[in-house]
Amino acid sequence: MDSTKPTPTPTSAATSRIPVIFDTDPGIDDALALALLACHPRFELLAVTAVFGNGPVDITTRNARGLTALFGRDIPVAAGAPGPLRDERRRADAAHVHGDDGLGGLSASLPAPTRPLDARPSDQLICDLVNERPGEITLVAVGPFTNLALALRRDPTIAAKVKQVVVMGGAFGLRGHAGNVTPVAEANIMADPEAADQVFTAPWPVTIVGLDVTQEAIMRESELAKLRGRGQGAGDLLWLATRHYQQFYDARDGIGGIYAHDASAAAILLVPDAFTLRAGPVRVVLEGIATGQTIQDWRGEHGSQTPWSGHPAQQVCVEVDAARVLALFDEIF
Amino acid sequence: MDSTKPTPTPTSAATSRIPVIFDTDPGIDDALALALLACHPRFELLAVTAVFGNGPVDITTRNARGLTALFGRDIPVAAGAPGPLRDERRRADAAHVHGDDGLGGLSASLPAPTRPLDARPSDQLICDLVNERPGEITLVAVGPFTNLALALRRDPTIAAKVKQVVVMGGAFGLRGHAGNVTPVAEANIMADPEAADQVFTAPWPVTIVGLDVTQEAIMRESELAKLRGRGQGAGDLLWLATRHYQQFYDARDGIGGIYAHDASAAAILLVPDAFTLRAGPVRVVLEGIATGQTIQDWRGEHGSQTPWSGHPAQQVCVEVDAARVLALFDEIF
Repeated sequence: MDSTKPTPTPTSAATSRIPVIFDTDPGIDDALALALLACHPRFELLAVTAVFGNGPVDITTRNARGLTALFGRDIPVAAGAPGPLRDERRRADAAHVHGDDGLGGLSASLPAPTRPLDARPSDQLICDLVNERPGEITLVAVGPFTNLALALRRDPTIAAKVKQVVVMGGAFGLRGHAGNVTPVAEANIMADPEAADQVFTAPWPVTIVGLDVTQEAIMRESELAKLRGRGQGAGDLLWLATRHYQQFYDARDGIGGIYAHDASAAAILLVPDAFTLRAGPVRVVLEGIATGQTIQDWRGEHGSQTPWSGHPAQQVCVEVDAARVLALFDEIF
Repeated sequence: MDSTKPTPTPTSAATSRIPVIFDTDPGIDDALALALLACHPRFELLAVTAVFGNGPVDITTRNARGLTALFGRDIPVAAGAPGPLRDERRRADAAHVHGDDGLGGLSASLPAPTRPLDARPSDQLICDLVNERPGEITLVAVGPFTNLALALRRDPTIAAKVKQVVVMGGAFGLRGHAGNVTPVAEANIMADPEAADQVFTAPWPVTIVGLDVTQEAIMRESELAKLRGRGQGAGDLLWLATRHYQQFYDARDGIGGIYAHDASAAAILLVPDAFTLRAGPVRVVLEGIATGQTIQDWRGEHGSQTPWSGHPAQQVCVEVDAARVLALFDEIF
């Protein structure tokens, strides 16, 4: 909002803002996504709902509150699911990726939250906000999809009231991009395969931003360094937190930077034509060696009695113009 | 063998011939593969072992015998497994692809077999021949891998005595090549997933020629037509049988020809450098929506406690120079 323009027209940036609820497990790349959602003028960030994932939910909730304060947003933050729908699913330990505190040791540097933790669990907050503004709200989910599955269970009518769902998760094996926790499974899906399958087969439009594109959105160290000194301390904290994250990826993949996994899910709302989509029902493998694999039936040539038939065609990102995603970080702070 | 050269040197074509047992479920593209194995001077075809697959095993055995006679080879033909290792696996009906008789209606035109059916089941014949010539024989398998699994069960020592195993089967999702019976499963694997998993994890070297490359080896109608009038009737029969096969693929994929699926497995022995290989353990999904999927762990970055660890690195074909495969048909008859 530019305060020198007191009477915005209906077509101004103000009225074209995208109302978003961010479901997240911060997480270092979650923090970068939250920076976009909280600070880019095109977004109207309504709430942050935390979930287990990159750390236990008490840690991700604390990080979500501190990061929301860091980015200057006085909005509700809720705590969500402490684990997957099925208890026996193994919990991946992401401390080697995101640090013991989920933010590469930087969580102690976060400002104090500006408001109390929302009293509602994440899934209830999602339902309440969606019912307040039916047809308007986009859910951006970048952790395990447990909160979204619980929200669908709490109030199935929200499926028809959410404008769209954009998730970071999954791997579709394109251009050699395989899973990151097994040869076929991505971490957010593996953390709660049942929840992911329920979210992908629910009657709402889902866009899936998987490793196939997020591993092409590499933020080099030089681009990350540009965050320093900006955003009244926010940019410095992101720079420092990504030092830990980059160490992990440099050691594993030698990319000289980080993958902008979660930020890509926010980016597709701002620069949709930077992504190529493929339509078709998506299911998640729930048993055996392929557990956690996302499979899209985009050809639909195997008849009407398959595990995919009858489910909504969702959109899977198959290509990305990564430069346009990364350029969005020049538009914040 | 050229009869004008009565004293071949040790380095001649005669001594560099490749001893092969062909395990097959003919099948129209099986017939093209058999034409290469039976008639190309570089091969020494020792036996044909039939298995269920493109039709019931009595039909595939009858076809194997007739085709072996058609191609002028007086060698043992054996009947093999009538169904998968686990009885409850569904049997795909391939009649729409290969015709009710497995050969597009042409089986009645095959010559009478020149010798009785071998009294041994396919898996025993495989074991016997391999034990007679340890270290020398290549198994080329292009149907469900039940006979090979049964041979390993009958005599596990053959794993160390087979020179190599080349199979047509599987789909690894490269360049958009997905499964052909489900979005992730290929027909030969889906027909007996347990057998395939046992063959891929046995301690013998396996090269897997999957849909990723065989669907790039398209024999156009004009190339198939060149078979006519050659091979003392054999070429004419192949041309006519492929009319049925081509109808199926033209209707489904509009390729104006056929995929040389099985012939590609024979071809890699003649022109190995026309194929690019990727090494790593391969497992088959045995349950859930991904049943029949082949998954190779070629990055090996998920630790030592995965379903892939400890299994032999097998070779998966990831690229093919299709023209070199198809040119081999100019070298027979």
